[in-house]
Amino acid sequence: MSGVIRIGLFGLGNVGGGVVEQLIENQSIIEKRVGAPIKITKAVVANLAKRRHIDLSGIELSDEPEHILDDPTIDVVVELIGGIDPAESIIMTALERGKSVVTANKALLAQKSATIFPYVYEQSTCFGYETSVGGGIPIIRTLREGFAGEQMEEIVGIMNGTANYILSRMTSANLSFDVALKEAQEKGYAEADPTFDIEGIDTAHKLVILMNLGFNGLFDLEDIHIEGITQITSTDVEYAGELGYKIKLLGEARKTEQGIEGHVHPSLVRNQNMLASVNGAYNAISLVGNYAGPSLLYGLGAGPHPSASAVVADIVEVCRFRVNGQQRPIAPLSIEKKHLQSIEIMPIGNIRSQYYLRFNVYDQPGVLAQISTVLGEYDISIYSMIQKGVQHDPDAPVAVIIITHEAMEKNVQYALKIIDGLDIVIEKTQLIRIDSR
Amino acid sequence: MSGVIRIGLFGLGNVGGGVVEQLIENQSIIEKRVGAPIKITKAVVANLAKRRHIDLSGIELSDEPEHILDDPTIDVVVELIGGIDPAESIIMTALERGKSVVTANKALLAQKSATIFPYVYEQSTCFGYETSVGGGIPIIRTLREGFAGEQMEEIVGIMNGTANYILSRMTSANLSFDVALKEAQEKGYAEADPTFDIEGIDTAHKLVILMNLGFNGLFDLEDIHIEGITQITSTDVEYAGELGYKIKLLGEARKTEQGIEGHVHPSLVRNQNMLASVNGAYNAISLVGNYAGPSLLYGLGAGPHPSASAVVADIVEVCRFRVNGQQRPIAPLSIEKKHLQSIEIMPIGNIRSQYYLRFNVYDQPGVLAQISTVLGEYDISIYSMIQKGVQHDPDAPVAVIIITHEAMEKNVQYALKIIDGLDIVIEKTQLIRIDSR
Repeated sequence: MSGVIRIGLFGLGNVGGGVVEQLIENQSIIEKRVGAPIKITKAVVANLAKRRHIDLSGIELSDEPEHILDDPTIDVVVELIGGIDPAESIIMTALERGKSVVTANKALLAQKSATIFPYVYEQSTCFGYETSVGGGIPIIRTLREGFAGEQMEEIVGIMNGTANYILSRMTSANLSFDVALKEAQEKGYAEADPTFDIEGIDTAHKLVILMNLGFNGLFDLEDIHIEGITQITSTDVEYAGELGYKIKLLGEARKTEQGIEGHVHPSLVRNQNMLASVNGAYNAISLVGNYAGPSLLYGLGAGPHPSASAVVADIVEVCRFRVNGQQRPIAPLSIEKKHLQSIEIMPIGNIRSQYYLRFNVYDQPGVLAQISTVLGEYDISIYSMIQKGVQHDPDAPVAVIIITHEAMEKNVQYALKIIDGLDIVIEKTQLIRIDSR
Repeated sequence: MSGVIRIGLFGLGNVGGGVVEQLIENQSIIEKRVGAPIKITKAVVANLAKRRHIDLSGIELSDEPEHILDDPTIDVVVELIGGIDPAESIIMTALERGKSVVTANKALLAQKSATIFPYVYEQSTCFGYETSVGGGIPIIRTLREGFAGEQMEEIVGIMNGTANYILSRMTSANLSFDVALKEAQEKGYAEADPTFDIEGIDTAHKLVILMNLGFNGLFDLEDIHIEGITQITSTDVEYAGELGYKIKLLGEARKTEQGIEGHVHPSLVRNQNMLASVNGAYNAISLVGNYAGPSLLYGLGAGPHPSASAVVADIVEVCRFRVNGQQRPIAPLSIEKKHLQSIEIMPIGNIRSQYYLRFNVYDQPGVLAQISTVLGEYDISIYSMIQKGVQHDPDAPVAVIIITHEAMEKNVQYALKIIDGLDIVIEKTQLIRIDSR
């Protein structure tokens, strides 16, 4: 049995508390897997006075980062405070001092990948970030190791439990977005300020982390087209259902002949697609590799225990290498440093997709002809069409839902601009992309 | 760039051919991930005269195992011939000579785990067996690394594509077992002798491999209760459907207070359970860890390309360690050797489950009373009951389907023995366990 491996933990919130608990509850089996005992010896928190309902015996608390960073007996730094500052400097300093780092910080990794990863590569210590995407789902390991022989073709995921909970409730209980959001907040699935979750920003953070790993480069978060779910109405959910689809907030990355796509937005997902069955706070990530074919990983994407599970898996990995006196054998972004380069994301205008278009128009003769003429001019052909709420009253609104064949996004955007300027159109046309697999 | 890593490949069948192809097609990205070129320099096949439709340039063929085993320049031996003999001695010899080994041999690992794994532990080279379970699904890595901090509570999977294809077709097209099997054979999803697949033996092999890893010990294949799908009728599929279930062949392992369960049999799976949506030749494995919670991995469980994908992932792992001059840092069964011990599987009689019971009885008054009296005597309470085919003719058969509450298996077996001896019973009662999650 080797000596104790000492962990310094930044943050004792929900996830930090879960990590403390798990390392105690599963201590025996973890020690058998690592070959040495693991102990959290120090923790740094923002508020020392706060009462915490976890067993902190043996853990020295402080509110000063140096408490951990200056301690040469600490082997592994676990960063669970989130945000950019001071997390970034804590991670950088820890690495600089030869400590291995485990982090759950998706915002940091997504926004600062171009500075953090090259720095991580300079060090030989381990860098674990499994928790940054998909909570308890081992998606980072799967891309880095399980799919190490693949050329990735597609990474598409439901990666935000809050948005998925809201959309699931809109679907199962016919709720409006506002009511579903309120319910999610009351049940603790959404924060008081849910912007990051419902506007797709959190999903974009996770997507760019997976793209870096899956498509072997450094992608710029700014290049990802992001739409949230606030514009989705219960009418859309209902019509999608009638057509055999569920509406899901997806992060999508795809390798095409024109380049690599990366976009976040609600999509219509066919009922037969496994992603359509992912409900409530669950996450799932669907992967297509050129040899593995279509795969899916499903699990709890957030919560103290699933997130702790991923943090502890990273800790175990670091410790397994430490016990064997080894450095990191696998590059943090899977490929060697000399091959690491920035890759551009294809502009959203160039993607091709099927589209769900819901037009709000007056119930007048010739309306369909006008719409379909414009679509035709932009090379958009119609796969199917339904009209809803027909009352044969030329002053009454009617909904026309058109499912297009695959078309180019910019053509669809141009066409809608023209259509939305027509006299017959009452309000802005709703566009939702269709995940056509 | 380090020197070339040399692979010796045993077997150039479907999977072996896929590995040759993948290492060529994905050569550039694999080299960037490994930091060295990988080359298959030698291959051993049973029939040298056979024509093969793959690019074998640079590969020296032979029909003698020594061709590879005696070659000190070969770093990694890949065994894809299957079966016990000579695969076992090839693997043992390769390990003994300091070569890393990658194998897809589920039968060998399931039947000989008690001799092979302790031997693997003696060596410091790498031993990859990702391909043995779930084809392209990275289930071995997930249990060994992604869930390295978990106490596993449950491992339940659809792990045989042939059986799943047959059951899926019985469900979607109302086929009988025989017709669905014939179709599977014609389409290449079932072999001429499908015994291993349809009798649940292949699933049991895979289950025991996952149990060794997930429950940290060595389990005996002989202790696994195995039932296949040959007794499932289209009537059962239909009634299950009416009740909101699909019938799936599951390998199930579960930690209970009474011990560890391990059994293979058809089960009724609720439609809402993700496993119910796994159709055709797809596989899926559902995992429950005490912190990660419920998770699922889904993908192609067989086929030349998905299986090659797992073999190549193992090759990449071996090579990443080689390039860094490192030995295996993670124990092949996740835990250290000194903790490795045999664990008994709980007898099937002691498991608790809900049951689907289909009685074939004469349509006579008092039939239900007789059945429910016997069930009651054995502490089996009825959750729901439906009668099918009632014609009010005391000589006509009628089907009575009973869904029980959770009951102990041996009580159910005793009760059925008595019920099947009653005069009112026409033929042996059908019992299918219910996956009650």
